[in-house]
Amino acid sequence: MVGLTRADAEAADAADPLAPFRDRFVHADDRIYLDGNSLGRLPLATRDRLQALAAEWGEQLVGGWPAWIDAPVTAGDAIAAVIGARPGEVIACDSTTVNLYKLVCAAIAARSPRVLVAERHEFPTDRYVLEGLAAREELELRLAGAELELRRGELVVLSQVNYRSGELRDLAAVQARADAAGATVIWDLSHAAGAVPVGLHAAGAELAVGCTYKYLNAGPGAPGYLYVREDLQDTLRSPIQGWFGQADQFAMERDYAPHAGIRRFLAGTPPVMGLAAVEEGARLTAEAGVAALHAKAIALTERMIALHDAWLAPLGFTVGTPRDPALRGSHVALRHPEAWQITRALIERASVIPDFRGPDSVRLGVAPLYTRHVDVHDALQRLRELVALGAHREFDATPGRVT
Amino acid sequence: MVGLTRADAEAADAADPLAPFRDRFVHADDRIYLDGNSLGRLPLATRDRLQALAAEWGEQLVGGWPAWIDAPVTAGDAIAAVIGARPGEVIACDSTTVNLYKLVCAAIAARSPRVLVAERHEFPTDRYVLEGLAAREELELRLAGAELELRRGELVVLSQVNYRSGELRDLAAVQARADAAGATVIWDLSHAAGAVPVGLHAAGAELAVGCTYKYLNAGPGAPGYLYVREDLQDTLRSPIQGWFGQADQFAMERDYAPHAGIRRFLAGTPPVMGLAAVEEGARLTAEAGVAALHAKAIALTERMIALHDAWLAPLGFTVGTPRDPALRGSHVALRHPEAWQITRALIERASVIPDFRGPDSVRLGVAPLYTRHVDVHDALQRLRELVALGAHREFDATPGRVT
Repeated sequence: MVGLTRADAEAADAADPLAPFRDRFVHADDRIYLDGNSLGRLPLATRDRLQALAAEWGEQLVGGWPAWIDAPVTAGDAIAAVIGARPGEVIACDSTTVNLYKLVCAAIAARSPRVLVAERHEFPTDRYVLEGLAAREELELRLAGAELELRRGELVVLSQVNYRSGELRDLAAVQARADAAGATVIWDLSHAAGAVPVGLHAAGAELAVGCTYKYLNAGPGAPGYLYVREDLQDTLRSPIQGWFGQADQFAMERDYAPHAGIRRFLAGTPPVMGLAAVEEGARLTAEAGVAALHAKAIALTERMIALHDAWLAPLGFTVGTPRDPALRGSHVALRHPEAWQITRALIERASVIPDFRGPDSVRLGVAPLYTRHVDVHDALQRLRELVALGAHREFDATPGRVT
Repeated sequence: MVGLTRADAEAADAADPLAPFRDRFVHADDRIYLDGNSLGRLPLATRDRLQALAAEWGEQLVGGWPAWIDAPVTAGDAIAAVIGARPGEVIACDSTTVNLYKLVCAAIAARSPRVLVAERHEFPTDRYVLEGLAAREELELRLAGAELELRRGELVVLSQVNYRSGELRDLAAVQARADAAGATVIWDLSHAAGAVPVGLHAAGAELAVGCTYKYLNAGPGAPGYLYVREDLQDTLRSPIQGWFGQADQFAMERDYAPHAGIRRFLAGTPPVMGLAAVEEGARLTAEAGVAALHAKAIALTERMIALHDAWLAPLGFTVGTPRDPALRGSHVALRHPEAWQITRALIERASVIPDFRGPDSVRLGVAPLYTRHVDVHDALQRLRELVALGAHREFDATPGRVT
């Protein structure tokens, strides 16, 4: 049972073993930031590393490459430690969208699926990738409801944590069902990595992609990553053949032959600055430990739901996220018909940064590396006061552009 | 007629209208850098911008996105000014390899070519992209010699400046021949942009890609760019459908519909840090002016060839780059049977940074924004002394890994 007073929140913070991690990030002001699942905070180590890397470029020029060239693997291995993959199973490169495209193409070529499947409420870019490839390959595209059937001949893209509802899938159970049925699953870990245990290798997951600028705190538009289970790597090929995926990169006169292992999924020259930020962010996450992060995510979201029930339900809110912590990631969607206006009012009048997700969700993300229990308490108190007063009604009801 | 004394080089520098641009870059030591066509120097403005951008991330968090979200277009427009494109014809995103893949796929879908063509000596990543798509689409792949035929039904990828030989194609003339024949050309501007006039729009060029970390000085692995002529944009589609290429990006429940104009070639979230560096680098280049940069590139490479003829030809060197400045980019390949050892010796014993390009070229690039005539003079003098003494023979003759 979660206590509802500020003293209760303070006590929880005092007992939080992850509390010291908060000081490893830049905090420029006192706003309560509950959108770390959209763009994570800047780690101090990353700020320093980016500055050092610019200096390296300036000083070493092309001579810096021997130190930089393995960055996709180094950053990938740092991520592997967070998502339960083995070294050499993850590579950081390109965007999440491009990585998903590569894996879907590779899986189509290797498995010849009849149907490409995504959840109807999947993050749009995942659906768009599938939609494009279904059209090109003349395959059926099926947009499924929450219950996936997982049948033979299906290639399914599935988020471990849904970007909007925060619903957490049991990755190991779904993977086992897919394996039994003969379906292929490509996991999207964007809203899971760094917040909940992923355990790819233990689950026997075959393929995954993810984003680094959310709970991994790698900065705006930082490179994504992809995972291919070790034993599958040499059976799959990237559709985008580039010189960084070539077996002998600097042999300039050869035909293309894919590199052994995960490097074959590289295409062009790796973004050195972005990959340094990925490595720093993933290392900080691994240092805190996924089990501890998940425990804190549960504690913070439990507090949020308890405060909702006490304070917000009477004001017309409902919880759009599973109440069972085993089915929940690290954010909570509070649904309200005036969610857009409430979001604006929180930002403009209450110094609380949530996110709006259409049509009717105020999405509140807790980043267990730096979100405190008092942040959750104070944010919900301000939210309660603001809506009780009707202060949000001064904002335009038409949703505008958000990221 | 180029004077061969150091005083002549000093006089040329004193008369160089671009000389002040050298001070806009970081110079950490006295080494002579002749590999700016592999990785350009760090502009001071970029160093400052990257630091400011990290601060923006730290302070504004997700609230920074409204200022960042148009970065691919802003950086693209800055590049457009360098390559003779119109605003809205260029977008900076992804890697050069991924961008080439997108345009080749788009052109295959729109034009149904029978044959994909590249030069045998084209940069490997370009060949690899074509090789992969030829196999998938069951099209003929033709590796051409220096003379391209440009026939109907051909889709040709062609560098304006060859990465190894430095040969400069007459882009307008080739485009006119292609148009007359009914062939499609995708230009690779990687070794041209920022060094020679490109004039895409004036030439009626249809499609192009390029790299930003060479003469545009955007840093290791910075995003590439792609150009699509204005009137063609809405007839072509990217194979990689992502949320940043969607017409209404934040409408989360729609089917995919490509954005109007050049934005349809975006896929995932743009790399904000990298794009800021692209914008700074391209702006600095545009400020200097392409005509002035090209004039200086010619003057520097003329000096290099003249010094070669006087000093290096007797030592067994030949020039692997066209002697006619109208057929030459901004680098010179000096061919020698011991090119690998000579390259190592230049770096280790003479503080000169060239590049090796197999099998037998010492590639010397001049970056007209910051390379001086005395740099060319001193580098070739050291090269002459070193080879005359046989000092390079202490290095292993087996080429190793280079970038």
